[in-house]
Amino acid sequence: MNKVITKRTEDYSKWYLDVIEAADLAEYGPVKGTMIIKPYGYAIWENIQKLLDKKIKDTGHKNMYFPLLIPKSFFAKEASHVDGFAKECAVVTHYRLKNDENGQIVVDETAKLEEELIIRPTSETIINNSFSQWVKSWRDLPILINQWANVMRWEMRTRPFLRTSEFLWQEGHTAHSTKAEAEKEAKKMLKVYKELVEKKLAMSVVAGKKSDSEKFAGALHTYTIEAMMQDGKALQSATSHNLGQNFAKAFETKYLDQENKFQYVWQTSWGMSTRIIGGLIMTHSDDNGLVLPPAIAPIKVVIVPILKNNEDNAKVLDFVKKLKTGVKECEIDYRPELSAGAKFNEWEKKGVPIRLEVGPKDIENNSVVLVRRDKLSKENVKVTELAATIKKTLLDIQNYLTEQAVNVRLQKTKTVDNWDDFVKEINNNNFVLAHWSGDREVEQKIKQETSATIRCIPFDQAPELGKCVYSGKVSKKRVLFAKAY
Amino acid sequence: MNKVITKRTEDYSKWYLDVIEAADLAEYGPVKGTMIIKPYGYAIWENIQKLLDKKIKDTGHKNMYFPLLIPKSFFAKEASHVDGFAKECAVVTHYRLKNDENGQIVVDETAKLEEELIIRPTSETIINNSFSQWVKSWRDLPILINQWANVMRWEMRTRPFLRTSEFLWQEGHTAHSTKAEAEKEAKKMLKVYKELVEKKLAMSVVAGKKSDSEKFAGALHTYTIEAMMQDGKALQSATSHNLGQNFAKAFETKYLDQENKFQYVWQTSWGMSTRIIGGLIMTHSDDNGLVLPPAIAPIKVVIVPILKNNEDNAKVLDFVKKLKTGVKECEIDYRPELSAGAKFNEWEKKGVPIRLEVGPKDIENNSVVLVRRDKLSKENVKVTELAATIKKTLLDIQNYLTEQAVNVRLQKTKTVDNWDDFVKEINNNNFVLAHWSGDREVEQKIKQETSATIRCIPFDQAPELGKCVYSGKVSKKRVLFAKAY
Repeated sequence: MNKVITKRTEDYSKWYLDVIEAADLAEYGPVKGTMIIKPYGYAIWENIQKLLDKKIKDTGHKNMYFPLLIPKSFFAKEASHVDGFAKECAVVTHYRLKNDENGQIVVDETAKLEEELIIRPTSETIINNSFSQWVKSWRDLPILINQWANVMRWEMRTRPFLRTSEFLWQEGHTAHSTKAEAEKEAKKMLKVYKELVEKKLAMSVVAGKKSDSEKFAGALHTYTIEAMMQDGKALQSATSHNLGQNFAKAFETKYLDQENKFQYVWQTSWGMSTRIIGGLIMTHSDDNGLVLPPAIAPIKVVIVPILKNNEDNAKVLDFVKKLKTGVKECEIDYRPELSAGAKFNEWEKKGVPIRLEVGPKDIENNSVVLVRRDKLSKENVKVTELAATIKKTLLDIQNYLTEQAVNVRLQKTKTVDNWDDFVKEINNNNFVLAHWSGDREVEQKIKQETSATIRCIPFDQAPELGKCVYSGKVSKKRVLFAKAY
Repeated sequence: MNKVITKRTEDYSKWYLDVIEAADLAEYGPVKGTMIIKPYGYAIWENIQKLLDKKIKDTGHKNMYFPLLIPKSFFAKEASHVDGFAKECAVVTHYRLKNDENGQIVVDETAKLEEELIIRPTSETIINNSFSQWVKSWRDLPILINQWANVMRWEMRTRPFLRTSEFLWQEGHTAHSTKAEAEKEAKKMLKVYKELVEKKLAMSVVAGKKSDSEKFAGALHTYTIEAMMQDGKALQSATSHNLGQNFAKAFETKYLDQENKFQYVWQTSWGMSTRIIGGLIMTHSDDNGLVLPPAIAPIKVVIVPILKNNEDNAKVLDFVKKLKTGVKECEIDYRPELSAGAKFNEWEKKGVPIRLEVGPKDIENNSVVLVRRDKLSKENVKVTELAATIKKTLLDIQNYLTEQAVNVRLQKTKTVDNWDDFVKEINNNNFVLAHWSGDREVEQKIKQETSATIRCIPFDQAPELGKCVYSGKVSKKRVLFAKAY
């Protein structure tokens, strides 16, 4: 509770970990790379889930659940997929433990699985195995499904939310009868993510297409939203893949079309994970701790009664109980063992958008002190105007955080036309819009020399002839380079 | 869709599988013992989740998330727990695959874990590992948390919903400063389950305490609700455990009390899983397929327009679109490729509580035909009275299903006082209330001779002196025996 938060300018990376600890969002689990999501962090995830789940259902998808364990052989079917994913995975080889002669618990070697099972890193393979059985005719299409699940990718360098071996996510999977329909679906779901992230999480993102070397292992195209963090690095916030017929061919997912001919289905998959909470933290928080946009804050308003002597205390407690905030997500902090100052500090670290401070003097004026977490500004508000002021202020905070995120991104996005400027702006931790010829080798060299990767080829740009910033070759579009999490 | 359902009297076990297939609730996954929960089945689970999650939060618990993988050594700490659970578990031994010299994908032996990891069969151990770090003083108590998660117990004989190696559940975990508080908590949560199961799932249960041999591995007491299935077998529907200090001692979960002395915490855990859907099916469904209580039905009302010739069709479709059912969970089945009869059949199999049939003649009378799924009865309802009739009928169905479940249980519960009657009534697939001396050996012998187990020692009974039905020894209470799933 008395956690001191490192300043961003001092050590950004430590600041991030400190904010998480100070707000009590998560901590490391006992197994390397795992994370325990604590109640306050999980409540943020539940709020994001609720909003996203509604959007997923409103766009016609149904939730279901596929098994956690995938037979190893499924991964061998789609060649690029196994290279990209299956190799760094948790492998289940046995299904029993026993006591050895010394009474120690050991793996029972007689209970070895015939075929090893992989804890899902993503579910395209196991889902295609089912789709191939479910799809018979064009009438069975489209299939539009989603699942909320845990997945696991063995990671050596981990960080809470941003990179953990197990994480929580939703993965949507669809099958269509035409390429155009799959393409439309992939773009539609990216738009769903973009709206959620911009309007509710108040983050600022660039939507676009991944370069071939950065796309999902097994996809035709990957679409992405790339958010800018306060340190100028990019965070891939959600992706949506047009899988083409790659998995359909690997799993023989075919249908009889209206002319009675067999056709492979066209597919998409798309996902957003608990990683987004890392992005949320790094977009809004400050040296005092977490800052949360009201739209996803588990607690929107906290009331701290200032208790000084016993005579006043009853009056203050009675007064705060009667306050009408008009907000359901409102808590009163009664804890007698903590000073008001300690409470202010704690709620500030937890990023609660509005804090109300109420002492004996405020009661005399029939008012309360309202503190905004984003600007840390204070104002006196008459009790009669409290609900209206809170409503307006929550909207103000949401808008202010959104604007601030957009401003940071625009200020730290540089359009450059030569290599020296490119290196300079990347080293200054900016997003850089530069021409690129489309040459994979060049992309690789830029990465080696500057650590910058192509985050996406932004949708929102007019065609523009130019020269590749590295090779000088002809280019028709600018792409977004940045260092990334 | 044209699935023929085996009659219950013919083969009850096959009937169960047929109902699941006909309603498209779930199917087996590619790995033995796993299950794919299909959209309609998952929607039922989501409805149960939503109701239960609210009750869990309303009783002061917060959701959070602990990792899937538990170090093997954690299981060694609580002796009875490892015997009961950890031995039939999925064991992760490696974290990488590779291509061998033949290009086959194989486990990379260089990526062997130092300590094997177990896929959680339940989370007491990993949670106590955290509790032992979080709890310092009496001020930190109680801890009241819950998680929604997947768990895995390696099962050789599996059945959809009832017994699958992976299943979905919630597990609540609490820590308290006194034994009395833990006992109160364990009983409170059993009551939460009982109310949900009786009022929303319309099932009929007996609440009570497990005998020592049937209690949770590591618990002091296990409380249970035992539901009666239509075949007279019992289904353990949810359990709540008073864990005493067993895990606290194993993990050193201690706090400083108000006298500054170290004390071990007192704990509970409690869970309900996707297994309950199996119980729901076997309580209400009939030879025509699934029957769902309105309170948890994903679709409460389905409207089937009867389309005969093109001229009328437009009129019928226009009419059904304008119908005011007053119910959000209402669907209109427009599919042109299916006959009305085929649609009636399908929705009957899916257990939708109310079906509205609308043809040209109904339009002339400004009425619709309302069919109740529970009684399969039909009535004409004037359009002007439709919303009110639906509201009343949904309540009626909920009540009727509840009563029916209670009646079946009462009719098939026999109080017996001698061994011959005991054997006869157990063989007739009844619940049997009989005296038992408390002797573990007797319990074992009864199980061997009749397959009946003690489902619980019911709460709701007056003290009654008697003689053990098997041994003749003195007994103070009756216990509930039954064959069980």
